[in-house]
Amino acid sequence: MVHVKDELARGTLLSYRPDIKILDCTIRDGGLLNDHFFDDNVMKAVYNACVAAGVDYMEFGYKGSKKIFNPSEFGPWKFCDEDDIRRIVGDNPTDLKLSVMADAERTDYHEDILPKDQSVIDLIRVACYIHQIPTALDMVKDAYDNGYETILQLMAVSVVSDHELAEALDSMAKSEVTAIYLGDSFGALYAEQVRDLTVTYLKAVEGTGKEVGIHAHNNQQLAFANTVESLIVGASRLDTTFFGMGRGAGNCPTELLLGFLRNPKFRLRPVLECIQEVFVPLHEEMGWGYYIPYGITGQLNQHPRQAIKMKAGDNPHEYVAFYDQMIEED
Amino acid sequence: MVHVKDELARGTLLSYRPDIKILDCTIRDGGLLNDHFFDDNVMKAVYNACVAAGVDYMEFGYKGSKKIFNPSEFGPWKFCDEDDIRRIVGDNPTDLKLSVMADAERTDYHEDILPKDQSVIDLIRVACYIHQIPTALDMVKDAYDNGYETILQLMAVSVVSDHELAEALDSMAKSEVTAIYLGDSFGALYAEQVRDLTVTYLKAVEGTGKEVGIHAHNNQQLAFANTVESLIVGASRLDTTFFGMGRGAGNCPTELLLGFLRNPKFRLRPVLECIQEVFVPLHEEMGWGYYIPYGITGQLNQHPRQAIKMKAGDNPHEYVAFYDQMIEED
Repeated sequence: MVHVKDELARGTLLSYRPDIKILDCTIRDGGLLNDHFFDDNVMKAVYNACVAAGVDYMEFGYKGSKKIFNPSEFGPWKFCDEDDIRRIVGDNPTDLKLSVMADAERTDYHEDILPKDQSVIDLIRVACYIHQIPTALDMVKDAYDNGYETILQLMAVSVVSDHELAEALDSMAKSEVTAIYLGDSFGALYAEQVRDLTVTYLKAVEGTGKEVGIHAHNNQQLAFANTVESLIVGASRLDTTFFGMGRGAGNCPTELLLGFLRNPKFRLRPVLECIQEVFVPLHEEMGWGYYIPYGITGQLNQHPRQAIKMKAGDNPHEYVAFYDQMIEED
Repeated sequence: MVHVKDELARGTLLSYRPDIKILDCTIRDGGLLNDHFFDDNVMKAVYNACVAAGVDYMEFGYKGSKKIFNPSEFGPWKFCDEDDIRRIVGDNPTDLKLSVMADAERTDYHEDILPKDQSVIDLIRVACYIHQIPTALDMVKDAYDNGYETILQLMAVSVVSDHELAEALDSMAKSEVTAIYLGDSFGALYAEQVRDLTVTYLKAVEGTGKEVGIHAHNNQQLAFANTVESLIVGASRLDTTFFGMGRGAGNCPTELLLGFLRNPKFRLRPVLECIQEVFVPLHEEMGWGYYIPYGITGQLNQHPRQAIKMKAGDNPHEYVAFYDQMIEED
């Protein structure tokens, strides 16, 4: 039996990497499916399961601007007000850290992000597209100055040029950020590309103590495989969701990644329990997962919005017409 | 941007590999879901789509022994009688080659496999477990002597010892076989293992002109990713199924692999057309795809039969009980 030595691998299938941190973003990414309306029972079930499973972070939702988004049209997890979070977690007397996402240009970060000593939140994840990097860096600084851990996630990296990426990574490496994230928003990346990008990110932050993470989408059934590829070469921050819940085709399933890791930090059973009780009925209702048009937008390296629209429309299975239209637009 | 040079890669994301041959086994593997009963309309639709898509082989079903399997209990594609195949393809005046699977110890190969000049079949795929290798080699010889191309597929390779695998590969390399296949019957393998196994297979047949293929299962959502991993390092025979149809969680979806390959041999559109017309309703009826217990048997490197039983039973979503039972048995 030949064993191919992977010069870049940070471990083997049997090694234990204590540096790995799982961020469960079920509620945050899943909230894109239901405008962030989740029953408190669901919130508490996921919170309790994350605590019991030994997951490192749970992401509750967005810090959306109430000037942009009308609170009467969205559930509480579009805004993650302090009182709403505390209704679920109290003072969070656990090892689980809490995260919220702040989108560049869609968050009133100077007003809505409280000083850390007034908040149960631990981590602010700033998400931005490449042209929003300057704004995102200011948001990271603001959150850092307020006492939080921070992530900076560059979305849609599959359409960013090498030159712009190099500049962005350079700025990020010099910022106050705790970890930088590779976001495959279109579910377009193949393993070879994930490897190149992860190594590029790692190199950019070498010596700074900053970590690298990945947020994958499952449009081409590659979210789990790409997450594993990224972690093999050194990503240590991994995003997962229960039962793969998330926008469109969903994300890397928590239950599959825990099974792969065989890491004594984590426990699979509480995740399975939560899935059978909470996510089977939610899935019946909301139906994320594999859908041919998501595969097509992934292949074409495009945002899945056209596919999401198609799925909600009158002819969700007119795949050929969809393909012709996407190729045409391409 | 760092580009990681993969010393083993047979190409890049933009290179065209004319050596790649796709075998579509939708009907053969999918037949395990419905005891091989498919309407002639379905058969013709898949056949026509394979021809139009430029797929290399279409696998119709099994050459099951009528002494073991009662023909009144199974559809025609459990046996693939010559007349049944010709009812669909006539004399097959196309470039698409036709394949059937012959399981070791479950095929009366001396009687049921006609001389090639009396058959429209092109390829006999012999499938066996490790202890059946001697039988399988005799079956390969018989098919070869009768004028066919042959595949020898060692199933459940994830539970074969290195020592036995080396012996088996040595025998296969000396046999009359056209191609040897790595079969991840339990959907248990991760990319690193697929890479090691593919390289091991390739090394075993080096200089013989024999090719290497992969048949992946999707229990852990890795069928497509593992097929790509195997082809990158040199596998050239790739199994796919329309819409991922197949036993349990299914297989590598034809539509995803064609999208990845960007190979001018193949056309995606006829596959999409067939999926929307034929496989959307079939999927509603039969429901292959991701299911937590398949993920668990994959993680535990076990046959999915317990999970299949669970899904058909009264409590298909009792995942925790299933997990506890599997761990117990483990």
